[in-house]
Amino acid sequence: MSDLAERAAELVDAGRQLYAREMVPATSGNFSARLDDGTIAMTVSGRHKGRLSIADIMRVDAEGNPLDDRRPSAETLLHVQIYSRFAQARVILHPHSVNATVLSLMSHDELILQDYELLKAFPGVATHDCSVRVPVFANDQDIARLAAQVDATLSERCDAPGYLIRGHGFYTWGASVEDALRHVEAFEFLFNCELRLRGK
Amino acid sequence: MSDLAERAAELVDAGRQLYAREMVPATSGNFSARLDDGTIAMTVSGRHKGRLSIADIMRVDAEGNPLDDRRPSAETLLHVQIYSRFAQARVILHPHSVNATVLSLMSHDELILQDYELLKAFPGVATHDCSVRVPVFANDQDIARLAAQVDATLSERCDAPGYLIRGHGFYTWGASVEDALRHVEAFEFLFNCELRLRGK
Amino acid sequence: MSDLAERAAELVDAGRQLYAREMVPATSGNFSARLDDGTIAMTVSGRHKGRLSIADIMRVDAEGNPLDDRRPSAETLLHVQIYSRFAQARVILHPHSVNATVLSLMSHDELILQDYELLKAFPGVATHDCSVRVPVFANDQDIARLAAQVDATLSERCDAPGYLIRGHGFYTWGASVEDALRHVEAFEFLFNCELRLRGK
Amino acid sequence: MSDLAERAAELVDAGRQLYAREMVPATSGNFSARLDDGTIAMTVSGRHKGRLSIADIMRVDAEGNPLDDRRPSAETLLHVQIYSRFAQARVILHPHSVNATVLSLMSHDELILQDYELLKAFPGVATHDCSVRVPVFANDQDIARLAAQVDATLSERCDAPGYLIRGHGFYTWGASVEDALRHVEAFEFLFNCELRLRGK
Repeated sequence: MSDLAERAAELVDAGRQLYAREMVPATSGNFSARLDDGTIAMTVSGRHKGRLSIADIMRVDAEGNPLDDRRPSAETLLHVQIYSRFAQARVILHPHSVNATVLSLMSHDELILQDYELLKAFPGVATHDCSVRVPVFANDQDIARLAAQVDATLSERCDAPGYLIRGHGFYTWGASVEDALRHVEAFEFLFNCELRLRGK
Repeated sequence: MSDLAERAAELVDAGRQLYAREMVPATSGNFSARLDDGTIAMTVSGRHKGRLSIADIMRVDAEGNPLDDRRPSAETLLHVQIYSRFAQARVILHPHSVNATVLSLMSHDELILQDYELLKAFPGVATHDCSVRVPVFANDQDIARLAAQVDATLSERCDAPGYLIRGHGFYTWGASVEDALRHVEAFEFLFNCELRLRGK
Repeated sequence: MSDLAERAAELVDAGRQLYAREMVPATSGNFSARLDDGTIAMTVSGRHKGRLSIADIMRVDAEGNPLDDRRPSAETLLHVQIYSRFAQARVILHPHSVNATVLSLMSHDELILQDYELLKAFPGVATHDCSVRVPVFANDQDIARLAAQVDATLSERCDAPGYLIRGHGFYTWGASVEDALRHVEAFEFLFNCELRLRGK
Repeated sequence: MSDLAERAAELVDAGRQLYAREMVPATSGNFSARLDDGTIAMTVSGRHKGRLSIADIMRVDAEGNPLDDRRPSAETLLHVQIYSRFAQARVILHPHSVNATVLSLMSHDELILQDYELLKAFPGVATHDCSVRVPVFANDQDIARLAAQVDATLSERCDAPGYLIRGHGFYTWGASVEDALRHVEAFEFLFNCELRLRGK
């Protein structure tokens, strides 16, 4: 199998898993993988992420320009920003869960997570006894502007591979699809705990 | 396959999906599809919507009169109202979820949804930065009277393809079963978020 | 198949369904069916209700005395009371859900349900616009004493086929396993709504 | 099959079950079984507990020293403490659920459970009308120190086979994998009830 076909199959399967946990309702969410030649495998715009087929994954170049005549996810530039900033990021998942949405609507510009053993699921975190900041960005339909803001914030500090967009779910990434899915599980667990502690 | 058989198979499958997500408990809920000849495929009254067979779908005419000797859903006139009012509606789903029920019991005559990216799942909504009104009707065992009230309200304004009935779930529709299911997922997600924000 | 074997197969399947919805954790819950000869098919004590086999269902007589050398459910007399009081009851299910447990711990001697369309799932209820009382009994390890109390209360009034035991789940019954499962779904939905309305 | 292979297969299956209920997100949790020769079958460090294979289970001696060149779970000494203290413990499961995590973060050094029928799922508890203490330990990355604290507390009193670690899930054990899974279900149910009663 080609690099594209292998990565596409992984994204299709990730979508099926996230949908089973109700993290990509309607046609929300989007996924991508960085290919060996530097281009990006990206979900086509408007597809249902729980029922993707390999044909729903297209290629865009490193700046996010489509390499065929279909339209990639409207949020492609957010993926481009992550791949540009983090050399090790190979897969990006953007789930749209109730927990992430509600918690982001209740948060200002950051969420502080501490005292959770599960923080150790994130690279570089070796103890529960620390403070992990997750940025929360205001939602914006101007994705280039949002991507620039994300980049400015993550270039200063990045405690964990992920961030929230208000009313709009979260982004996370990893060196492989297994890594990225593990980060999804960790963030989703932590967001759920935070909401429960606040009585929501 | 005939038009009726195809649509019936889709409704059977939709019921199985909604039941798996606990949106049609006991024998609650009902579903329909507009057929090419203008008649309506409608669930027979009293069936369990999670375990329908094709034989549980019957035909009624455009005014809701049964075309065989079985009894269609008691709420057939609510379906007739939607098909009359909205030329593009081809499938109607009425789920009966905990989220919709509880939220409707806490709401007056409308629910306002805003700041959610997922509002873009509804036709004509292009940004989270808007205000979508979902009408909430008092429940009524006189379905003709309830249908008239729904019609009066939806003829004035319809921001999104759906409404709530207090203590009784919600109605939504689309140009296809995929469309209608996508609207179910979007409404259910939004109702869940609203309840969580209110600490319920 | 014999009457016992058919009913036992139904109870095994009901257990699998209830366990999938987390309503019979650990070895909680118990089930029974009235047989044509007046004896009762009853779950053996201490079995996991989500993984029953037909051999885990034994016969007891109409007073609850075991008809083989195994021990029937410790709560057999609660089943005997229902079959004695209600001639139409053929299947009894006792789920042990979080919703029923928490709601019962928050309730005094009764729970009043009103304004729910789903109340119509119960025999004799034709409108949401009524008030259905569900008795709540204090838990008691003396099952004969508890059964006598249940009988005294249900002989006076029985709005719906079910009751709660504090900290101990609920009992419901029907004319068939489908009936009883439909009542489980209706009660569980209503208990869940009541808890959510109270912010739990 | 060898003793190790049988126990390993049971732990693999337990992991799959616990993951399906979202009790071992990311790579959290760990499991073990005491073998007939006194050594311990233990999950290898860093594996995803929902997708274990038999090769992910290794042997350590009764003091927790690895018997091959892999690294056992970082929390191996907590397992060693339980096997040393309780002769009948043959299987230990450490799930990492949202309910256990949130409840432990809201608790001081113990959680008191009472009035629940399900308390009878624990050995030696014959009535709901009692008070079961579950110790809650502060989380500690120094596992030897944490194990010593656990041992001091459990040597004084142990009402039920389990304890919580703050922000870090719970430990439970049994005479078999069925026993241990039954205790997981009972604790998880009780933790969920406690949180709901507190409006979380």
